[in-house]
Amino acid sequence: MHELNLTLSALKQQYQNGDLTPRALMKVLRENAQEYDNYNLFIHLLNENELEPYLSRLENSEPNSLPLWGVPFVIKDNIDLANIPTTAACKEFTNLPTESATVVTKLLEAGALPVGKSNLDQFATGLVGTRSPYGPCHNSFDFKMISGGSSSGSAVSLALNLCSFSLGTDTAGSGRVPAAFNNLIGLKPSKGLLSTKGVVPAVRSQDVVSIFALNSQDAYDVLQVSAVFDTEDEFSRHKSNLTPPAWNTKPVIGIPDKASRIFAGDTLAEDNFEQAISTLHNLGFELKEVPFQAWLGTAKLLYGGAWVAERYVAVEEFMQKHEQQMDPTVGAIIAGARNLSAADAYKGSYALQKAQRQTQLIWDESGIDCMMTPTTPSIYSIEDVENDPIGLNSILGTYTNFMNLLDYAAIAMPTGFRKDDLPTGVTFFAPAGSDNALLKLSDELHKEFVSTAGAKETKVPDANGLYFTNSQTIPLAVVGAHLMGFPLNSQLIERGAKLIKITKTAPKYQFYELSSRPILKPGLVKTSSQGESIELEVWAMPKQHLGSFLALIPSPLGLGKVELIDGSEVVGFICEPCGIEGATEITQTGGWRNWMKQRPAD
Amino acid sequence: MHELNLTLSALKQQYQNGDLTPRALMKVLRENAQEYDNYNLFIHLLNENELEPYLSRLENSEPNSLPLWGVPFVIKDNIDLANIPTTAACKEFTNLPTESATVVTKLLEAGALPVGKSNLDQFATGLVGTRSPYGPCHNSFDFKMISGGSSSGSAVSLALNLCSFSLGTDTAGSGRVPAAFNNLIGLKPSKGLLSTKGVVPAVRSQDVVSIFALNSQDAYDVLQVSAVFDTEDEFSRHKSNLTPPAWNTKPVIGIPDKASRIFAGDTLAEDNFEQAISTLHNLGFELKEVPFQAWLGTAKLLYGGAWVAERYVAVEEFMQKHEQQMDPTVGAIIAGARNLSAADAYKGSYALQKAQRQTQLIWDESGIDCMMTPTTPSIYSIEDVENDPIGLNSILGTYTNFMNLLDYAAIAMPTGFRKDDLPTGVTFFAPAGSDNALLKLSDELHKEFVSTAGAKETKVPDANGLYFTNSQTIPLAVVGAHLMGFPLNSQLIERGAKLIKITKTAPKYQFYELSSRPILKPGLVKTSSQGESIELEVWAMPKQHLGSFLALIPSPLGLGKVELIDGSEVVGFICEPCGIEGATEITQTGGWRNWMKQRPAD
Repeated sequence: MHELNLTLSALKQQYQNGDLTPRALMKVLRENAQEYDNYNLFIHLLNENELEPYLSRLENSEPNSLPLWGVPFVIKDNIDLANIPTTAACKEFTNLPTESATVVTKLLEAGALPVGKSNLDQFATGLVGTRSPYGPCHNSFDFKMISGGSSSGSAVSLALNLCSFSLGTDTAGSGRVPAAFNNLIGLKPSKGLLSTKGVVPAVRSQDVVSIFALNSQDAYDVLQVSAVFDTEDEFSRHKSNLTPPAWNTKPVIGIPDKASRIFAGDTLAEDNFEQAISTLHNLGFELKEVPFQAWLGTAKLLYGGAWVAERYVAVEEFMQKHEQQMDPTVGAIIAGARNLSAADAYKGSYALQKAQRQTQLIWDESGIDCMMTPTTPSIYSIEDVENDPIGLNSILGTYTNFMNLLDYAAIAMPTGFRKDDLPTGVTFFAPAGSDNALLKLSDELHKEFVSTAGAKETKVPDANGLYFTNSQTIPLAVVGAHLMGFPLNSQLIERGAKLIKITKTAPKYQFYELSSRPILKPGLVKTSSQGESIELEVWAMPKQHLGSFLALIPSPLGLGKVELIDGSEVVGFICEPCGIEGATEITQTGGWRNWMKQRPAD
Repeated sequence: MHELNLTLSALKQQYQNGDLTPRALMKVLRENAQEYDNYNLFIHLLNENELEPYLSRLENSEPNSLPLWGVPFVIKDNIDLANIPTTAACKEFTNLPTESATVVTKLLEAGALPVGKSNLDQFATGLVGTRSPYGPCHNSFDFKMISGGSSSGSAVSLALNLCSFSLGTDTAGSGRVPAAFNNLIGLKPSKGLLSTKGVVPAVRSQDVVSIFALNSQDAYDVLQVSAVFDTEDEFSRHKSNLTPPAWNTKPVIGIPDKASRIFAGDTLAEDNFEQAISTLHNLGFELKEVPFQAWLGTAKLLYGGAWVAERYVAVEEFMQKHEQQMDPTVGAIIAGARNLSAADAYKGSYALQKAQRQTQLIWDESGIDCMMTPTTPSIYSIEDVENDPIGLNSILGTYTNFMNLLDYAAIAMPTGFRKDDLPTGVTFFAPAGSDNALLKLSDELHKEFVSTAGAKETKVPDANGLYFTNSQTIPLAVVGAHLMGFPLNSQLIERGAKLIKITKTAPKYQFYELSSRPILKPGLVKTSSQGESIELEVWAMPKQHLGSFLALIPSPLGLGKVELIDGSEVVGFICEPCGIEGATEITQTGGWRNWMKQRPAD
């Protein structure tokens, strides 16, 4: 078996160097996939003919001329790839789509190469990976253990190095549970960020296309390409309508308090979570214990409420004819919806509305940026699940079922190996729109927990904070009355601004005390001749509040560009020429804080 | 009968002058109310004892020391007032609340005085005002005509000058239809802006407390006091989470195209609407015809879909025992929910999601700021409605039923009298968060259509644009490359900025061409000695985009305060001292546009 490094950066390097071609790569991947035949990973592996149009197109372009040029990916078989059957793991349901799902189209346009359609829990109903007529999917670390589901084949094929990333769907945890069980990054994007057009619905109002990747950078790259507003998917949301968070520079992380942690008796899982907490403590993160019952209660609504009727609507016509041919567990779950009334549905929606309010109040009061939970309480063998297909599946959803109902983005990240050598992990989550912030956090932490991704020897890269932009705040340099402890600092605090760093200007400035009263203020003046470095603070100001801040700034002050000692420029206070007429020069003090200490009384 | 001017400003004036006391006022109002006994306006009129605590409290404070000091208001009898029975117009449902609804509490705290609990269509199910065991409510202009409903008594008591404003509820049109039929302003605020705690639910996910007022300023004042986030109402929304619109200075108004206007054969109503369109044309408004079928289709979902099951949930327990004692029409409508399944409810929600997308795309493409429709297609007599209680009621909801489903704010405004002397009106609506913008528009237009409000001789005040703040944009003065037609103007356009006016600075400025290349730019410099007025443009920049705009501005330019020729100050371009070293003074040209015409090539 040929071992390859399939991370996006490694692949790009190999293509650049001419060490590899897409055609050669796909040949190797097909061979390798066949060696894992008994894992039941694929419902359909693309053959040479099916791949040919994609390969030919790439071969007519320069290597790396597209964002995902020659990047192999696997597609969960409830997401359409044109001219390849979609089964949703139900043979009788099979149809042949003539066009690809929007998200697949975006990836193909970006140069990605489809390896195959992967096995899943039928109709994406399950978190185990065993509910499929194509056989149970096997864990990439231990053949007798479950893979997790419902995006089972997508996760395991990535863990076994058969692709660079894969697409799952994640309504109740299907994109996170298998990530945890196979040592992968599992991004469940904000609802509506990736189009669900061309995806077989599960719970349509809650369905999300998810991304499995070997590291957070890869997930980010795939997200950038695939997150496109789709007018043909009425659940699609504009990125710009999702409010990105203004997090603390070092995020404050909530964790369930001890009374609300559930491990279903699995002390190895519990140990790993405790260890993860210690690691974050040691890295200097502030962790806050949060009473988690309201979230756990919401998780139960997904199956205890009436949402299962959405699964029924999704397959209603099919089920009227083919109920007997469905997976018996899946069929029984969905058939339960027949007893639910419209009143039940609305009662469920009220319970959810109440839970949204409760959890939001706790969130706001605790002052956290994101939450961290175990991804699952435990892991089970295939045999265990065969003996208790519904009970154990329910336990697996403990920390995942509430996520879309409460409109969070989430990322599952490995936290190393349990004492029995099985992989496990945590999930970070925060309100919709926080996708990039979560990816930045998992990127920072991933290598603190594991050195390799998946079940092969793919290295986890070093963290690369600059890779993830924070588009919702603007760095703002303040030099006088807005400094910490000075009278106008509250104008920053009220707007949710956070201190980034204390530094100095480039040695190009003069500094004046203006005639402003009652509040004393300085004027910072860039010189073309000689100047000094003046002490300043750089704050991250949420962009949406900059307008009201600017409105408060009186003449002769304003906001322009200030050059820092490292040569970079940031937005900061400047002063009009008329302001310094008759002002007192205080350049030699080096900054406002010093001057205020030594200034004589008026 | 004593005629009073009960608008907020007139009342304030009378209190200030000592011409009136709250006690005297309430005595007169009670007497007057009794003269309208046969209109069936009130289910409970407060007696002296019940009023005493409210009056005593006011008498211990200075006149006008609270925002609504001594302002009499009527409360629809599905909204709780402490210690007064709430009936929802169903005697068997009656309960005695120990505390007031949140919105009532806020109004009482602001000094408002409760006159009584008003009649309504039972359980707020109806748009007619006839579905009540307390008798049909009569129209304030014509005793044989319907009042409109369900907030019938609230509207008619205001039109008959028995209060200064009144509270309704508005799920399907109950706060707008009776406003149109009684020559009133009917504000249906954004969903969640006013708490519904202490309100008998109708369709809980869609219920809104509404405000009837004599003019838009009064509605605005009441809204300011009553719109408070309520942690105990899970449907309550923070004002700050509602995005206010960045409208054009003169709003672009959509109207249904001719093919999608419905008047149910009522040519008098049609004439009035055509006239309203002409009036707006003559006032210089840009009107755009919009295909309106998607909205009309959404309106039908409210009763054709499964939302009626929410009405069932609201009274389920009561109905199990008392179905026979309900109004037969209301009972029959709500009982229909028993046949609806959870699958039906979700199918309805999908249809709504699709309609939201369709209508949003049409809205975005048409470039309108708000829509204007007739408030109702027609008006009927009480006898007509008794003969066809469901059919005619449905027609009345044509332009109102979709409003909360699609999450709009709306305001019903009179457009004068039909040829049969009955009042009628239009409704302006726009996405949630546009409440103040809509009020500003109706304030501007109200007096163009009618000179009096309600059925008495209360004058409609002159428009007062400054009364309504637009908190979502910031005026921004540009003087150079951002002017219309210049290279950086696109930075304004891309951010949705709109031109407000072309004016000049105060005569206190010098003006320079800077050394910037390739784009030529000026520097505007305030002088303490002599200066000139420089031409500039003031643009309304959406606050949320100011940050990204500021980030584009290179040194030596920045944003500070610019003094205009009228003496006011706005945010605008300023220049650091270093920028004008060696720059060319062009003050004498009077502005960048002039300079660019005469400037020699480099």
